[in-house]
Amino acid sequence: MDFSSFLTSLATSFLIFVVLMILFAWLSARPGNHVVYYPNQILKGLEPLDGGSKMRNPFSWIKEALSSTEQELIAMSGVDTAVYFVFLSTVLGILVLSGIILLPVLLPVAITDDAVNSNKTVSKGTFNELDHLSMGNIKEKSPRLWAFLIATYLVSFVSLILLWKGYKHVSVLRAEALKSPEIKPEQFAIVVRDIPKVSEGQTKKDHVDSYFRAIYPETFYRSMIVTDNKVVNKIWEELEGYKKKLARAEAIFEASKTTAKPEGTRPTNKTGFLGLIGKKVDSIEYYSEKINETIPKLESEQKVTLREKQQNAAVVFFNNRVTAASAAQSLHAQMVDHWTVIDAPEPRQILWPNLKIKFFERQVRQYVVYVIVALTIFFYMIPIAVISAFTTLSNLVKILPFIKPVVSIKALRTVLEAYLPQLALIIFLALLPKFLFFLSKLEGIPTQSHAVRAASGKYYYFTVLNVFIGVTLSGTLFSTFKTIEKHPNQIVSMLAASLPGNATFFLTYVALKFFVGYGLELSRIVPLIIFHIKKKFLCKTEAEVKEAWLPGDLSYGTRVPGDMLIVTIVLCYSVIAPLIIPFGVAYFGLGWLILRNQALKVYVPSYESYGRMWPHIHNRILASLILYQVTMVGYFIVQKFYYTPLLFPLPILSLLYGFVSAKKFYRAFQLPALEIAAYELKEVPNMELIFRSFIPPSLSNEKIDDDQYEDALSQVSRSTSYV
Amino acid sequence: MDFSSFLTSLATSFLIFVVLMILFAWLSARPGNHVVYYPNQILKGLEPLDGGSKMRNPFSWIKEALSSTEQELIAMSGVDTAVYFVFLSTVLGILVLSGIILLPVLLPVAITDDAVNSNKTVSKGTFNELDHLSMGNIKEKSPRLWAFLIATYLVSFVSLILLWKGYKHVSVLRAEALKSPEIKPEQFAIVVRDIPKVSEGQTKKDHVDSYFRAIYPETFYRSMIVTDNKVVNKIWEELEGYKKKLARAEAIFEASKTTAKPEGTRPTNKTGFLGLIGKKVDSIEYYSEKINETIPKLESEQKVTLREKQQNAAVVFFNNRVTAASAAQSLHAQMVDHWTVIDAPEPRQILWPNLKIKFFERQVRQYVVYVIVALTIFFYMIPIAVISAFTTLSNLVKILPFIKPVVSIKALRTVLEAYLPQLALIIFLALLPKFLFFLSKLEGIPTQSHAVRAASGKYYYFTVLNVFIGVTLSGTLFSTFKTIEKHPNQIVSMLAASLPGNATFFLTYVALKFFVGYGLELSRIVPLIIFHIKKKFLCKTEAEVKEAWLPGDLSYGTRVPGDMLIVTIVLCYSVIAPLIIPFGVAYFGLGWLILRNQALKVYVPSYESYGRMWPHIHNRILASLILYQVTMVGYFIVQKFYYTPLLFPLPILSLLYGFVSAKKFYRAFQLPALEIAAYELKEVPNMELIFRSFIPPSLSNEKIDDDQYEDALSQVSRSTSYV
Repeated sequence: MDFSSFLTSLATSFLIFVVLMILFAWLSARPGNHVVYYPNQILKGLEPLDGGSKMRNPFSWIKEALSSTEQELIAMSGVDTAVYFVFLSTVLGILVLSGIILLPVLLPVAITDDAVNSNKTVSKGTFNELDHLSMGNIKEKSPRLWAFLIATYLVSFVSLILLWKGYKHVSVLRAEALKSPEIKPEQFAIVVRDIPKVSEGQTKKDHVDSYFRAIYPETFYRSMIVTDNKVVNKIWEELEGYKKKLARAEAIFEASKTTAKPEGTRPTNKTGFLGLIGKKVDSIEYYSEKINETIPKLESEQKVTLREKQQNAAVVFFNNRVTAASAAQSLHAQMVDHWTVIDAPEPRQILWPNLKIKFFERQVRQYVVYVIVALTIFFYMIPIAVISAFTTLSNLVKILPFIKPVVSIKALRTVLEAYLPQLALIIFLALLPKFLFFLSKLEGIPTQSHAVRAASGKYYYFTVLNVFIGVTLSGTLFSTFKTIEKHPNQIVSMLAASLPGNATFFLTYVALKFFVGYGLELSRIVPLIIFHIKKKFLCKTEAEVKEAWLPGDLSYGTRVPGDMLIVTIVLCYSVIAPLIIPFGVAYFGLGWLILRNQALKVYVPSYESYGRMWPHIHNRILASLILYQVTMVGYFIVQKFYYTPLLFPLPILSLLYGFVSAKKFYRAFQLPALEIAAYELKEVPNMELIFRSFIPPSLSNEKIDDDQYEDALSQVSRSTSYV
Repeated sequence: MDFSSFLTSLATSFLIFVVLMILFAWLSARPGNHVVYYPNQILKGLEPLDGGSKMRNPFSWIKEALSSTEQELIAMSGVDTAVYFVFLSTVLGILVLSGIILLPVLLPVAITDDAVNSNKTVSKGTFNELDHLSMGNIKEKSPRLWAFLIATYLVSFVSLILLWKGYKHVSVLRAEALKSPEIKPEQFAIVVRDIPKVSEGQTKKDHVDSYFRAIYPETFYRSMIVTDNKVVNKIWEELEGYKKKLARAEAIFEASKTTAKPEGTRPTNKTGFLGLIGKKVDSIEYYSEKINETIPKLESEQKVTLREKQQNAAVVFFNNRVTAASAAQSLHAQMVDHWTVIDAPEPRQILWPNLKIKFFERQVRQYVVYVIVALTIFFYMIPIAVISAFTTLSNLVKILPFIKPVVSIKALRTVLEAYLPQLALIIFLALLPKFLFFLSKLEGIPTQSHAVRAASGKYYYFTVLNVFIGVTLSGTLFSTFKTIEKHPNQIVSMLAASLPGNATFFLTYVALKFFVGYGLELSRIVPLIIFHIKKKFLCKTEAEVKEAWLPGDLSYGTRVPGDMLIVTIVLCYSVIAPLIIPFGVAYFGLGWLILRNQALKVYVPSYESYGRMWPHIHNRILASLILYQVTMVGYFIVQKFYYTPLLFPLPILSLLYGFVSAKKFYRAFQLPALEIAAYELKEVPNMELIFRSFIPPSLSNEKIDDDQYEDALSQVSRSTSYV
């Protein structure tokens, strides 16, 4: 890639960005689109725009984003989102502070030397203009390398200081959120797993109740045995489906009335497969009947579930926060694999089916998953290559003869031949986050947020190892390791030596990511189109329309690893090719701005883990920093600089920092600190409400008397006084 | 060493043993010696012998030891001692079960082959008789090696099964002891360290009290700030010394009265250095005066200490066991390095000066100590060699010319020349346990028992690495690693190849250890002689006599590593030279018997950690087992057996076992399980007594009013009701 094509690609990306910005300004002002651009505000009952439907200032959203405080952000989108912004601003801070010093110092130092022209080719192509600005332009052993060595230290120190500040800040954010006087049901409960076998003649409920009442005679409120809800969930979903369809049919009937025929047309449907075959029936009657059939089925299944499908896990409730916080972290049983406890997550993010998994089974599952992930990271190209080899056009024609006419069209054939080899890879990469999330859930992790963190970590390793190192060494990890098998010590210097050659590739990559990626993000073109199609052709009831515009959450499970790849790239190139720093600043600055808008106005968080994501983010930034330090050592060795050993303390310092920060902060992210839980509540908690909030919707039934819950949901403890 | 000298050495050891046994039977029956042979029983107010002073059956102690139950042992000597016996019987069980199968099978298999005679020298010397019974007598690649391979598996499985049973048993022992209805002060307290800085105008006491009262409004009783007691301890010891001397002077005066002169001779002493120089004074008057001087000094220093020498640690008391147990393991502060808590140890085993050491300082100290220990283990021979080189006779004569006449005596000169080179080594090895204990205390460990465990662990690594591997490879680790530097993969096969040659050395070593070592242990010749000398020449008062016979504890800090060395030796040789198994059985059988007697009758435990030593013992047996498995792999490779890879799963299996057992049991040894703490107490605890039991003797003063404690010892909480 030469300089002009780099500029062209940059300009194209920028153009797309400008177009998307204009689209956004235009589309977001139209009232019909408000549900797409302001769903979070609408759901919270706020007015999306002050000035009604008139064309608004296309930059007002920037002012609003910039002027929003962290407290407003937490109120609109929760602590987890605020923590994501601490991440963005920490990285932004690192890059801005490093850039201010590095750019004016390193660029002149690099440009006035002349190693590139003096026959030392660092770059792969002919792209010399940018190489003059990089460390590759410094002659070997030159004293000018001192400037780069000091810069390496500077970037490291700036990073460590800002990381520490970030950790401290997030720790305070988490504490503030947890000590809030609002009543949060999860702060009064713990999840108990590995309940030992019940002795003959005792119910599970009695077992759990008597165990916890003995230990917490004053503060134990009640317990709820976890049940296997597979069947009852299915029936409940069936019922909900019928209800929706009935509402839809009624809406269609109403709609048909208002027109010419005042009596309307009663909608009909077929009862067979997908409504395509079978008997034709009147929809309203049919679904009403179905609902009437399903309700007693659901009720009887609820009873069966509560009585007979109890599992060896429970949620235990206490009538004060301190006891619950302390119970969630105390060893209860002498045999450590019995009665294991964790602090209860929000009800909505509990992965119920995982709770029953036994202590050692969880350990085994975890290691099995780790092995699978490691295999995936290292050898993912093998199955893809095999599949690609078999899915050639000629093979496909053999297997599926009916596609032959399509293939014989020449233009289509060319396109297919170009993309088919990569098809397996593209599908694989698109499915990878879901696959990793699925694997993480397989580990037996009890909460949604934890599974997201685990999947995000796996994805980070995949991207950093395969994209960053892979692209740099031009190959997959597998082929890389195969070639360096004989010289295992050389991986660092190999990596370092190939870095400068790829600088331009990554510059373009980062630019594409922020201009096009964030442009699409802000303009929400795709969700907008989908919403309008759905609204026009599919939705008949209000509920269906709402479902069509309901936004997801910020989904930082996949967002963070993507950002982290940029962090890794920018850090690793920061000293070698300081020109990447402005690109990094643009990525994180633009990202902060646009996502701030999205967090405030669009996305609705689907759970709250009170910033538990931070230690993971923090440790991965640190890992990237150490990767940067190690590759710098390698690159100074490649440059034959005598004082390279002066860099050796850096990775050790970073590891030490990691150790100290983890020791100081991490436990408070794992466990609820008692001093936090001891803060005053604004009112005496209503334990009945707290208890009910943990009943899964498929089991919650107003009509079922409390007595019938008795089997799985324990009795109210004799003493329910608030202590 | 040839066969006859081996037998001679064995016979000599046995003879010494028999003599010591007879001495024991004779000496222990004499009433004057009862305080040496039955101190534990006397201190517990029990009658040492049933039959008075008549010559007892010399074997009755064996019957008593064998018939004693574990409950009796716990009552007499505590859980820690019982755990030590679980260790002995577990190892004994492993060896007996292995021996029953290995000896009748492997010995015939070995003896009927003929590799030793067919020109393959395994042993270093000419000691062929025993070599015929070992695996060294099997020809290379022989199918007979199958028997040894199966034996290797057998020993491993027997070990793992018995280790698991042992762990389970000790876990129950610990639980039983902790759930006892007796009131143990340490179960109502926690130790708090890293108290953050007090804000202006607030006392430390208020700070601690308000913090814990907020978290535990109902159950917080009171707190006690840890003070720097160095000065007050010194004054207190001075006072106690004067009191003893006064009692002694009065006893001498009384003794002088009863003889010829009815008015007696008032004892005198000189006031100068060591009572040798200075003014001559009347002792009774002098010491009475000194006591009167010291008491007000002590009282004023007590006040100063309580008020001004407060440190950033405290003991916090709760009025129920469950809260204390739960508080001891809960995270209290959001910043993890503040308000760190541990469960309170027994007051007598708290290492007060270590409590103030700050969170990160403890970490740093720990790693510094680890580095020092590692250096000691690897390079201990260097300073010793240097010192030895300088302390030759001729050098000594130069430095200390006055020893010249002594040296010129020829016989003495020969002896000195023989032992002087080893002198530094002997002194080093004698001081090593104390040095390691000192280092462990430097780590900032808060309790005596924990420091003993830490020192014991360090000592284990020293003995196993230096004695076992060192002797086998004939050299120190340092020289070993220097030679294998070039072939780092060969350490296992080097070790394996040198094992058979040292079998006889270790056989003799084990025999010496059990016959002479345990003979001396049982007969208590040394303490007996010391006691009689002290009683005759030094002791004047009853208290002094009691001090002279007061036994120590079982001191398993040094005992366990010694036993562990035997475990390692016997395990590693069990299959190679199965003849070592009977020796191991004798060692642990005799040890069990003799130490059972000592535990029941002699030693008085100096603290109780409720079996916390077990996980360490267990893990070290496991480590020895893995060392055995790895050396067996190496030895089978040396024997060129094709099926050696069949042994590879063994070490992995052992590691897996270690992982599972640690997961299942270990946390309950670190932390108090709540289900245990929730057991009923036999009475409502007297909190005042519990609180007072933690006041160090130098600060405890009946006369000081409670109000004066206020500064460091917090006020009784407003609510002291037992919840």
